Amino acid sequence: MSTTPRKHAGPAAAPYAAVRDLVLANRILATEGILDAFGHVSARHPVNPARYLISRSLAPALVQGEDILVLDLDSNPDGETTAALYLERYIHGEIYRRRPDVQAIVHSHSPTTIPFGVTRVKLRPICHMSGFLGSATPIFDIRDSIKHSDMLVRTPALGVALAESLGEHSLALMRGHGNVVVAADIKAAVYRAIYCEVNARLQLQALQLDPKPRYLSDSEAAQSDTTNMKVAGRPWRYWAERAGCADLLDS
Amino acid sequence: MSTTPRKHAGPAAAPYAAVRDLVLANRILATEGILDAFGHVSARHPVNPARYLISRSLAPALVQGEDILVLDLDSNPDGETTAALYLERYIHGEIYRRRPDVQAIVHSHSPTTIPFGVTRVKLRPICHMSGFLGSATPIFDIRDSIKHSDMLVRTPALGVALAESLGEHSLALMRGHGNVVVAADIKAAVYRAIYCEVNARLQLQALQLDPKPRYLSDSEAAQSDTTNMKVAGRPWRYWAERAGCADLLDS
Amino acid sequence: MSTTPRKHAGPAAAPYAAVRDLVLANRILATEGILDAFGHVSARHPVNPARYLISRSLAPALVQGEDILVLDLDSNPDGETTAALYLERYIHGEIYRRRPDVQAIVHSHSPTTIPFGVTRVKLRPICHMSGFLGSATPIFDIRDSIKHSDMLVRTPALGVALAESLGEHSLALMRGHGNVVVAADIKAAVYRAIYCEVNARLQLQALQLDPKPRYLSDSEAAQSDTTNMKVAGRPWRYWAERAGCADLLDS
Amino acid sequence: MSTTPRKHAGPAAAPYAAVRDLVLANRILATEGILDAFGHVSARHPVNPARYLISRSLAPALVQGEDILVLDLDSNPDGETTAALYLERYIHGEIYRRRPDVQAIVHSHSPTTIPFGVTRVKLRPICHMSGFLGSATPIFDIRDSIKHSDMLVRTPALGVALAESLGEHSLALMRGHGNVVVAADIKAAVYRAIYCEVNARLQLQALQLDPKPRYLSDSEAAQSDTTNMKVAGRPWRYWAERAGCADLLDS
Repeated sequence: MSTTPRKHAGPAAAPYAAVRDLVLANRILATEGILDAFGHVSARHPVNPARYLISRSLAPALVQGEDILVLDLDSNPDGETTAALYLERYIHGEIYRRRPDVQAIVHSHSPTTIPFGVTRVKLRPICHMSGFLGSATPIFDIRDSIKHSDMLVRTPALGVALAESLGEHSLALMRGHGNVVVAADIKAAVYRAIYCEVNARLQLQALQLDPKPRYLSDSEAAQSDTTNMKVAGRPWRYWAERAGCADLLDS
Repeated sequence: MSTTPRKHAGPAAAPYAAVRDLVLANRILATEGILDAFGHVSARHPVNPARYLISRSLAPALVQGEDILVLDLDSNPDGETTAALYLERYIHGEIYRRRPDVQAIVHSHSPTTIPFGVTRVKLRPICHMSGFLGSATPIFDIRDSIKHSDMLVRTPALGVALAESLGEHSLALMRGHGNVVVAADIKAAVYRAIYCEVNARLQLQALQLDPKPRYLSDSEAAQSDTTNMKVAGRPWRYWAERAGCADLLDS
Repeated sequence: MSTTPRKHAGPAAAPYAAVRDLVLANRILATEGILDAFGHVSARHPVNPARYLISRSLAPALVQGEDILVLDLDSNPDGETTAALYLERYIHGEIYRRRPDVQAIVHSHSPTTIPFGVTRVKLRPICHMSGFLGSATPIFDIRDSIKHSDMLVRTPALGVALAESLGEHSLALMRGHGNVVVAADIKAAVYRAIYCEVNARLQLQALQLDPKPRYLSDSEAAQSDTTNMKVAGRPWRYWAERAGCADLLDS
Repeated sequence: MSTTPRKHAGPAAAPYAAVRDLVLANRILATEGILDAFGHVSARHPVNPARYLISRSLAPALVQGEDILVLDLDSNPDGETTAALYLERYIHGEIYRRRPDVQAIVHSHSPTTIPFGVTRVKLRPICHMSGFLGSATPIFDIRDSIKHSDMLVRTPALGVALAESLGEHSLALMRGHGNVVVAADIKAAVYRAIYCEVNARLQLQALQLDPKPRYLSDSEAAQSDTTNMKVAGRPWRYWAERAGCADLLDS
């Protein structure tokens, strides 16, 4: 797999390790069923916090290093490019602008999170792998911004509305669409995107058994998230192997 | 994989690109679990709108170029053939006859759509990938045509009844059987067949959480479908790779 | 894969085609998730109806031709053998004794059939692939024969009880255990074992949507089964390919 | 795959067969979806009952012989090591200390067991493969020991609390976390971990059909478990083949 960044982005624009990890994140999220042909993952530029890395418009499973672009926080390419861009890239730019703590973002149609975005049941942490959910996951409804839309966050204004809905949370559900998850580094963002889906499946099952399952308490959620964020590198290697990309791991 | 059309169909009968894309559609739909050993996908002939391309009777996963036949709108082979034909080919012929806008058709037993064909719950768009469902999916019940049948659309008259049930919709469910989905090109038909199944799974889950999930509004459904039909080529490449058929993609 | 029958069974005991198809049935049922490490499939001897072919005690996914034994209807080996036998082989012998129409039998723990064996909901045909279910699937409860058992049909008397519970049906559920399915040839038995599981999954989903789904009528069930039994050879090739055993198909 | 034990553990510390079977158990449990990047399996030392074998901190799918460590019952390494240890190793040490009959332990986040740990529905044997569940599976709730925790059994005291909750059972669910399963040998522990998950899935489905499914009686559960423990070696070979590790089987 090529991990060379696109030349038009400039050699300083995309350090090798950041490009490689972003390629790996794309492959992992596709292999684990979080992203299908749609959705995207980005990382803030490690040197210039006013830039972020994201693939050109492409199914995540197919992303290679040469597909990685550098965009500014208005989500315009940093330098000339003829590459097609993701229509919804404003999700990323507007969150990076408002959340200096965020270094990586996943936008997905992660399947089991969609039911929780269209119903009155709150997505809540049912196990210690998903303490990051906390107790008050926001739901972004694009209809609050545009009454008749094609559901896509396709303008800067909609990106702002989504970022404001996310606020200081780690996750926002998007009604009839999917979700966006953020973290302090790309391994943690991938971890959260995967365990968000796992949690949704488990919560759905628990609710079939009992309308009032015992969720993690707020302190249990917070403390387990702190622990998990320290070990998010351990599943990374496992997922890389499953994605057939062990060659892209740090040595 | 051979993509040579069957000789008896005549060289003008099946342009290479149409045969290749139909082979690919068969492989993709099998890989994605929409078709098992049964079901079929067809494409209107790109030059002669009074003809359509479809495999001889064969499990879709096994279809090669030499299996593709050309049938007329009465669903008789165009030229001599000793090949066995799908018993239910009238589904295709009668829809192509009545719907000049339709260029490709999938008939499948797509698993999660079957429950929606035998219950009083309407299949409705729960996310923006499936706006094509609209708000009034028809259900074709063969018992309205023949009180005691083997459930198969095995005559021209039954093909007509199904086509009339479909009307101007993109999808008709078939009670106790499966569904038929149509589109303006083969990539879009494959897209719709796959996301129809996805939508059914998500709607089933949402209904376990809440009897009244928030579906897409009619305008959201229509607008998102317009957008999606423009990008249906992007998942095509992804699905071709998953089906192990990247060699059949346009260069 | 070796398809040579075990020597001790005698050269006339197991014609090549019967051994090969039984090996294939084992591999297909394992690949399709009907059999895991447990369960078994048998075929009546094609020459001597008082004998049947079945593997020695072995996980079905691992069965080769040399593992196939010939048993009599008392389920004793036809000739000397040191091979371990399935504890529950009496299921097969006692059904073959009572049902001259039956040429092949699958006993499985097919997952979604187990819930239907322990609840008051009848397994019924929800789609035309599973008309063989009819409207009155019997449930064999071993507790009616032995109050305190290890649940296994491990004696001739229990085999008789199960065969009597099956009666003239194509399928009997076994409470807390699995099911047994019979057919007029091995391809049909494999077909029925697979679509029995499919039907159970679809019926379970339909019942989540509506307590009264529209099942096939008795005549629809009977007529569709007649049609399907004629085409059961078509999925056979497809399943053989999926099982990586295309080399074992008839040429 | 290397099955050489780590040198620092000393040559007598880890007999080849025990290391090999523990590597295999790790691979099997990962392949069957019982363990993902987290969870662990251990075996009591075959020569010294005051020691146990467990991997260094690593995703189970990646474990090789050289990763296997020997710990004492305080869960300290037997000899010097720079390897990172599982934070929750006290689960193993404290159970081995209290249960001389236990020779192998699996701690997993086996997905469908988690809902049963957070609801009022008892996990009970729905089929004869899981008689070991008995009728009174305990649930360990860490909140009874520590009101505000990160949910991990990260101290000897928590290991004791869990071991006491387990008592003489074969399984304890862990609220919001997963479960721990024990057995008299490693093949039986793997068997139980897998069929515990299978049982949870089947019971969840049965409860969707009927609030009162017929479970195994206590005597059926006990007798079927006795039978199954005798045949737990048969699925072992099957699972090893599926895990791509047939080379690690006994010859």
